Amino acid sequence: MSDNRELSTVLPVAPTRGRLRPLGLDEVRITGGFWARRRETNANATLAHSRDWMERVGWTGNFRAVAEGRVQRDRRGREFADSELYKLLEAMAWQTGTGTGAAFDPDIAALTEAVASAQEPDGYLNTAFGHPGQQPRYSDLEWGHELYCYGFLIQAGIAQARTRGEGELTKVARRAADHICATFGRGGIERVCGHPEIETALVELARLTGEQRYLDQAALFIDRRGHGTLADSEFGRVYYQDDLPVREATVLRGHAVRALYLAAGAVDVAMETGDDELLAAVVRQWEAAIARRTYLTGGMGSHHRDESFGDDFVLPPDRAYSETCAGVASVQLGWRLLLATGDPRYADLAERTLFNVVATSPSEDGRSFFYANTLHRRHRGAAPATDAVSPRAESGLRAPWFAVSCCPTNVARTLAALPAYVATADDQGIQLHQYADAEIATSLTGGHGVALRVRTDYPSGGTVTVRIDRSSPARPWTLSLRVPAWTAGATACLVDPDGIRRTVAPGTAEVTRVFLPGDEIRLELPVTPRWIAPDPRIDAVRGTVAVQRGPLVYCAESVDLPDGREVDAVRVDPSAEPEDGPDDTVVAPGELVDQTDPGDAPWPYRALDRTPASTTAPTAERTGVVLVPYNSWANRGPSTMRVWLPTTEP
Amino acid sequence: MSDNRELSTVLPVAPTRGRLRPLGLDEVRITGGFWARRRETNANATLAHSRDWMERVGWTGNFRAVAEGRVQRDRRGREFADSELYKLLEAMAWQTGTGTGAAFDPDIAALTEAVASAQEPDGYLNTAFGHPGQQPRYSDLEWGHELYCYGFLIQAGIAQARTRGEGELTKVARRAADHICATFGRGGIERVCGHPEIETALVELARLTGEQRYLDQAALFIDRRGHGTLADSEFGRVYYQDDLPVREATVLRGHAVRALYLAAGAVDVAMETGDDELLAAVVRQWEAAIARRTYLTGGMGSHHRDESFGDDFVLPPDRAYSETCAGVASVQLGWRLLLATGDPRYADLAERTLFNVVATSPSEDGRSFFYANTLHRRHRGAAPATDAVSPRAESGLRAPWFAVSCCPTNVARTLAALPAYVATADDQGIQLHQYADAEIATSLTGGHGVALRVRTDYPSGGTVTVRIDRSSPARPWTLSLRVPAWTAGATACLVDPDGIRRTVAPGTAEVTRVFLPGDEIRLELPVTPRWIAPDPRIDAVRGTVAVQRGPLVYCAESVDLPDGREVDAVRVDPSAEPEDGPDDTVVAPGELVDQTDPGDAPWPYRALDRTPASTTAPTAERTGVVLVPYNSWANRGPSTMRVWLPTTEP
Repeated sequence: MSDNRELSTVLPVAPTRGRLRPLGLDEVRITGGFWARRRETNANATLAHSRDWMERVGWTGNFRAVAEGRVQRDRRGREFADSELYKLLEAMAWQTGTGTGAAFDPDIAALTEAVASAQEPDGYLNTAFGHPGQQPRYSDLEWGHELYCYGFLIQAGIAQARTRGEGELTKVARRAADHICATFGRGGIERVCGHPEIETALVELARLTGEQRYLDQAALFIDRRGHGTLADSEFGRVYYQDDLPVREATVLRGHAVRALYLAAGAVDVAMETGDDELLAAVVRQWEAAIARRTYLTGGMGSHHRDESFGDDFVLPPDRAYSETCAGVASVQLGWRLLLATGDPRYADLAERTLFNVVATSPSEDGRSFFYANTLHRRHRGAAPATDAVSPRAESGLRAPWFAVSCCPTNVARTLAALPAYVATADDQGIQLHQYADAEIATSLTGGHGVALRVRTDYPSGGTVTVRIDRSSPARPWTLSLRVPAWTAGATACLVDPDGIRRTVAPGTAEVTRVFLPGDEIRLELPVTPRWIAPDPRIDAVRGTVAVQRGPLVYCAESVDLPDGREVDAVRVDPSAEPEDGPDDTVVAPGELVDQTDPGDAPWPYRALDRTPASTTAPTAERTGVVLVPYNSWANRGPSTMRVWLPTTEP
Repeated sequence: MSDNRELSTVLPVAPTRGRLRPLGLDEVRITGGFWARRRETNANATLAHSRDWMERVGWTGNFRAVAEGRVQRDRRGREFADSELYKLLEAMAWQTGTGTGAAFDPDIAALTEAVASAQEPDGYLNTAFGHPGQQPRYSDLEWGHELYCYGFLIQAGIAQARTRGEGELTKVARRAADHICATFGRGGIERVCGHPEIETALVELARLTGEQRYLDQAALFIDRRGHGTLADSEFGRVYYQDDLPVREATVLRGHAVRALYLAAGAVDVAMETGDDELLAAVVRQWEAAIARRTYLTGGMGSHHRDESFGDDFVLPPDRAYSETCAGVASVQLGWRLLLATGDPRYADLAERTLFNVVATSPSEDGRSFFYANTLHRRHRGAAPATDAVSPRAESGLRAPWFAVSCCPTNVARTLAALPAYVATADDQGIQLHQYADAEIATSLTGGHGVALRVRTDYPSGGTVTVRIDRSSPARPWTLSLRVPAWTAGATACLVDPDGIRRTVAPGTAEVTRVFLPGDEIRLELPVTPRWIAPDPRIDAVRGTVAVQRGPLVYCAESVDLPDGREVDAVRVDPSAEPEDGPDDTVVAPGELVDQTDPGDAPWPYRALDRTPASTTAPTAERTGVVLVPYNSWANRGPSTMRVWLPTTEP
């Protein structure tokens, strides 16, 4: 652990210790390519869209209703609606702080004023509880989400402090945090919130302010959970991870977003307190979840019923829940684990999740969203209403807003802060974790100024060029480049400034030397499309393969099939290779079966010995099946879609 | 349609018209074998068990609490808890009426007294609504279940009337029905209940009493549904079938039990009113549901989230919901369709569902139950608490009682009335639909007395012998025997009284002649075990096969595997045949893979081109895999289980 590092001040996560030092939004700029486009849409469309919807559905008005004493009558939305405003405020702060898109300072000021007007003198702040005619404060810790809401308020206050300096929102957040410590400290309400989130926020506030008591309170919440201080529920205490202490659990379990936020908070506490046992517990849980409970997209949580992780290897594509917020939370957890350990596998999963879950949620125009990210859509749905909130998970098309609308603002704050997840530094040099057109400038240990320029059309192309713009004084340092795990079995190469090319294995490729301005390092990643086969224990995808190209998971979508066919007509032939098509498509060898043939069977099971398969095999025509990146699906009207493609019969 | 038939008076379903005339509990006795044992356990264990649990958890006390004016304080259980008492009363009445097991007349009297004490002067009867401090009557038709509860009350009252003659329970039921007609008739509350059930009950009450207004009210409820008189919900109006009129729907959809009860009520209305359009609509929905939305077991409803039918071909075995009550409801619907049309396919599905869903729910001792009937259990669960109610669907072992405990009493009333589902008559003769050791005596058209004796060890064995004990006066009539659809592709034979043997195809085999006492007809059904392959569109079971033996679906259960292996180690080889083992087991050719080999992969997906499958294939040993009837699983302690078995690699 390296203590007392010089950290950027413009960071969502700023640990005081850990293997790697994060680079802030003032040190990393994303200048072009995939993520720059996504961030631009976020700044120019999603933020105002979210602000307008929250005004329209009355969630912003809830705060004013508290101030005006009419909240019992006028409150709108679910019990956690306050949190959406906080996540939007955080997103606006980071977006403003990176200098891209419009400046949201006036919005931040107006929304903050509404929020502040609802805060009680003792720091309590929630529009759903504690006012005349409402349930009392903290009377429903299982489902009330009060501490959950504070968590996002605190994160928004921190974002303001780190981008514009401490302002009114930061003050509101600190008053709330002080109230929490006074209320939930030792001797107070010795319980936890049904939805973790406050833990990571309090640690970050301790990092911002240097106040130990916020960290202590977060550690208390982590240690209290798992002792049954929450009432049992229909879904069991496992739903809110109150079944087992964090230190004893062996796998991520229960409600996926809750599990991931909790794990992120536990890593934060472990980093700040040097608690290696706690860190090791989370690493163990992460490893087990990745090995057995994660979709190919990086998505987590397969149950619709309770939005939870399923049992090991229960990963049905056609009922994949894979909530967008679980993707966001997984990226947050992975980033903390990466900073703590330096292990590139966390950046591998983050890349997979960013490209295939987080990037899948918003539409191309940034004004509608997937809440759940299924891997197989069986029938063309109707477009959700554009003028009403949607149920959270049932549509085949993105919806503009949801009754439970946690996902849009969660994507927004992630995209707004995305440059902070690109690179880190340590005493040896700089590490690149995610590849995008970017400019990076920081000071290495001892005040050694370094500036880099990254050029790439990743993930369309696999070549990443890093040019040294500045490196002074002249002394050796190390540039580390993540070689993604998805390159395994193919050939990735690194070309150093002398033009010497070497093959590099998945993990980390390093160049250590005295860099001179103008030096170029080139990483060549093999982004040819490849068949992916699942573990045989994932029963739901037996007999199928998927296609991945670089970090992108691909899918068949009905709009690309001839003659109005649906995707269930697709069979692919993995004995031949998929190939690049135009515009980032892939063309997979395969055939289209005539779906009308077996359509009339009155009963979908047959005795093997009476009807030889050959006589009922549907007719098929060989063809190249066009596949598109999964994150781009459902942007061309109602369609059917599948990621896992049945193979042709041998 | 044959009107004005002479019907038995001891019948759960007594249509005044229809293709077939049901035989009552006074005409059919089940005397031995599989169902006799199940019925004996039901009479000797399940009924008292249910009565005691309802006393213990306070659901019986709810009625007394109403009478004593303290229900607001003391009410226990969910909003539909009243209905469980009614279903138990119905089960007790049928059981008493068939003369098997102890007589439950004293229990019926005591429970009826409690129920009657809670009825309001105007006939209203519900312990969850309408009393001081409770929500008003009918203020929550979406979720309140008031009409649903009346439905079971009326069915219990009918069972009393048909077994012991009209008594206090029948009077309570009629008062409630009169109240419903007064309240929900034209000009009253022109809406429906969120849970169908009242429809079929009101039709049956019209059949019992001859009162047209009960039938009219049922028809009103059928025609009102699907017009959005219920509020939208998180699950959509499809959840309670209020999205589309019954006549317009093309497939069973939404909450499975709701859909099936509604369809049964619609058939009842159609039969009594001669509404062929309505009947055809339900037939169409049934056909589509059977072809695309039904498990191999006959189970219906795959979603845990909303207990609903999923999309076509979404039938995951490891998250099969297949609620026991949906099985019961499917049998009820099928029986009505059989009576209406005479088509044996309805008896085929009923047989499948009775043996593989209804018979699977209760434990061998009749004192614990499955609420959901999964087809794949991945890890050995812990036994549920024996002294507390269980959540409804999450355990791998049967539970003694549930917070939502609709299933135990639903199974109980089905088993109690089961002899009524065995045989029917028409102008030509007698039809046998289900095979069990039984004695049947009835009068054919014109007062022609007939008595039969059925001897079989079905489903262990496939031979069914029907002996004519009496047939007078001597004139020709037709004995019809269902030849199950599962015999397709194998050879079933019928041997007539002259010893002449002929092959019979699935459907109906008939013998028409002047039968003499002592004549024997023998049906020989091929109950050798057979591989079953699923439609390729059921993605979740691609690459697997199942085994069926006669009507019984089989499964692998870990307690039968060597060395503590779990069922996911099983691979079967469908190029060889499964064979009979001892004690109704089947031995399937296959192998057990060593599960530890692939256990350590950090990520469960691999690129096809880098790791040829042969190098990672786990070691396997050839063996005969013991399979047991699915309905018997989980009677030997915690285990893992699967119905669909992956095949060995080619």
